[in-house]
Amino acid sequence: MTSCSARTANQCFPWLQAIDEPLKMDSLSLAERDQQAKREQGVTETSPMRLRMEKFIKEQQREIVKALEKVDGTKFRVDEWQRKEGGGGITCCLQDGKVFEKAGVGVSVVYGTLPKPAIMKMSANHKNIIEEDGQIPESLEFFAAGLSLIVHPKNPMAPTVHLNYRYFETAKPDGTSGTWWFGGGSDLTPNYLFDEDAVQFHRDLKEVCDKHNKDYFPKFKKWCDEYFYNKHRGESRGIGGIFFDDLDETVSDKENIFAFIQDSLKSFIPTYTSIVNRRKDMPFTPEEKDWQQVRRGRYVEFNLVHDRGTSFGLNTPGARVESILMSMPLTASWKYMHEPEPGSREARLVEVLQNPKEWV
Amino acid sequence: MTSCSARTANQCFPWLQAIDEPLKMDSLSLAERDQQAKREQGVTETSPMRLRMEKFIKEQQREIVKALEKVDGTKFRVDEWQRKEGGGGITCCLQDGKVFEKAGVGVSVVYGTLPKPAIMKMSANHKNIIEEDGQIPESLEFFAAGLSLIVHPKNPMAPTVHLNYRYFETAKPDGTSGTWWFGGGSDLTPNYLFDEDAVQFHRDLKEVCDKHNKDYFPKFKKWCDEYFYNKHRGESRGIGGIFFDDLDETVSDKENIFAFIQDSLKSFIPTYTSIVNRRKDMPFTPEEKDWQQVRRGRYVEFNLVHDRGTSFGLNTPGARVESILMSMPLTASWKYMHEPEPGSREARLVEVLQNPKEWV
Repeated sequence: MTSCSARTANQCFPWLQAIDEPLKMDSLSLAERDQQAKREQGVTETSPMRLRMEKFIKEQQREIVKALEKVDGTKFRVDEWQRKEGGGGITCCLQDGKVFEKAGVGVSVVYGTLPKPAIMKMSANHKNIIEEDGQIPESLEFFAAGLSLIVHPKNPMAPTVHLNYRYFETAKPDGTSGTWWFGGGSDLTPNYLFDEDAVQFHRDLKEVCDKHNKDYFPKFKKWCDEYFYNKHRGESRGIGGIFFDDLDETVSDKENIFAFIQDSLKSFIPTYTSIVNRRKDMPFTPEEKDWQQVRRGRYVEFNLVHDRGTSFGLNTPGARVESILMSMPLTASWKYMHEPEPGSREARLVEVLQNPKEWV
Repeated sequence: MTSCSARTANQCFPWLQAIDEPLKMDSLSLAERDQQAKREQGVTETSPMRLRMEKFIKEQQREIVKALEKVDGTKFRVDEWQRKEGGGGITCCLQDGKVFEKAGVGVSVVYGTLPKPAIMKMSANHKNIIEEDGQIPESLEFFAAGLSLIVHPKNPMAPTVHLNYRYFETAKPDGTSGTWWFGGGSDLTPNYLFDEDAVQFHRDLKEVCDKHNKDYFPKFKKWCDEYFYNKHRGESRGIGGIFFDDLDETVSDKENIFAFIQDSLKSFIPTYTSIVNRRKDMPFTPEEKDWQQVRRGRYVEFNLVHDRGTSFGLNTPGARVESILMSMPLTASWKYMHEPEPGSREARLVEVLQNPKEWV
């Protein structure tokens, strides 16, 4: 496991499932103590961030599923899965609906143990994972929770959207919270460019960011353009959004960052339902549907070739593959040497993908 | 560049295109000397293996294109491309034909320079790349040529086939041939299992192998099952064939191996045209077409996630991406939690993919 892949999944750490047996401390593992706390005290504002983040993303998952079901008129399939070492997940998927070709909303909550090489890599970005005497611990209990979402609409005029918010922490030997950080973001992938959608998507994200820190939006938009980049094609996967990682005490305190994460995630439903409702019933030609399919192919290429979380997950024995690959579109196409006509709407999209734009 | 990825492309070394300027020796590079030899003497049985392999695969490319055009009734598109440092390639593609959804036959011939780290990695499998005084050379001119082919038929009863034969050599400072090896193989990926096809495919390959060395077939079939393995799915990509690499002087002499490569490649047309002609007009249901699309998705997963050549190629700046991704099917599908009915024909295929079978 590498530090980057551990922190930049678009699928909420599914690979961490592969790590074995948690360490036992005070005879109870972190997972067991969290279970006990939930049972005895419930989850309140004074609970550890682990429990608050888990509660929050599960609530949001229900809200998002409800909102997307309302747009589509079709129910999601819900699969709950357990991880024997502690934690588990809920994968919600709507396939071949009226509006959505595929929509997946997944939550995973994972308890496990980091081996020394993983800790060493993480120490590059998180100095405080190193013990006071300068030693790298032999192993560390960790907790990881995240919500991730991908929606591929049927209508080629309606954009694909992806979102992921996650929290990671390691436990100190006494069971208190050690190193921690939040990561996340949301990005839009249209097949046809509607400036109105691109501007709204970015304006809404900027508003949330600005409320917390004026530096966030420009920094996270740039990070998004850099991360979701199909470098073998020389083009971005989509037209932007925000992406960030390693938000820890060097950036702000835990409460403030959690508040930012909450606001960001909560802004998804109004923004995206507004965009998709504008596009879902627009007329389109078979050629426009074909173009959507070619763009879907590029989406698959990014996810399978470049996305660190997906590829790491797929290479990890024991991961829940169907939750990781829920991000795949229902259908995709590859045409040899396919190039849009110069001056066409398709060509305009590619131009923006090759030269990311500031929308707000 | 790693040694493995340098030797196990399914796309004939496209990534080698990215390596810069060849070394100059006696004022002429290897590419220039080969050009001169072709111009002045033509290519005969006494020419260097580089020229004979190039001539042979280009002839075979024409033969295969002709044979597939005859089956389909549609002409291939032919793109010839040059590599400024020396060499180039010919990419032939037939898309959305009568019989074939996509058929790609590519030849690439590349001259370049290996940097020291690449040479060090290669030395693990090829000791004689190290100089007599035990030094690793700072850089080495190399030559790589290969033919690779993928055919995805439209009819779900007709299997996808993939094939690749390649030759690699480094030049000694005096311009003579240094370290060299051949690699290659051919494998079959049906959506529905016809034992007759599987047996014929393997029997024909076994016959060619046995003619040269009785150990080849069992060894290369096992290698094929191991290499074309979608480990995140716990299943093979297809039902087998042969795969081999590093066939060098420790295995046999250059002439004998070249003769084996020639026989193997020449056996493709009769075997595959016989199989595809039996299947191309079979009736099928929309559900069977859907299953084919799901299997196409698995094919994409293997090529983008696990195939060392493809992923290395896509991560190498300057590679001809369209030649690498010619291997993608025209269309593919991903269905969440899709599982064949127990006892169905689809389930039987999956069972064989999970437990590779000896067909002959």
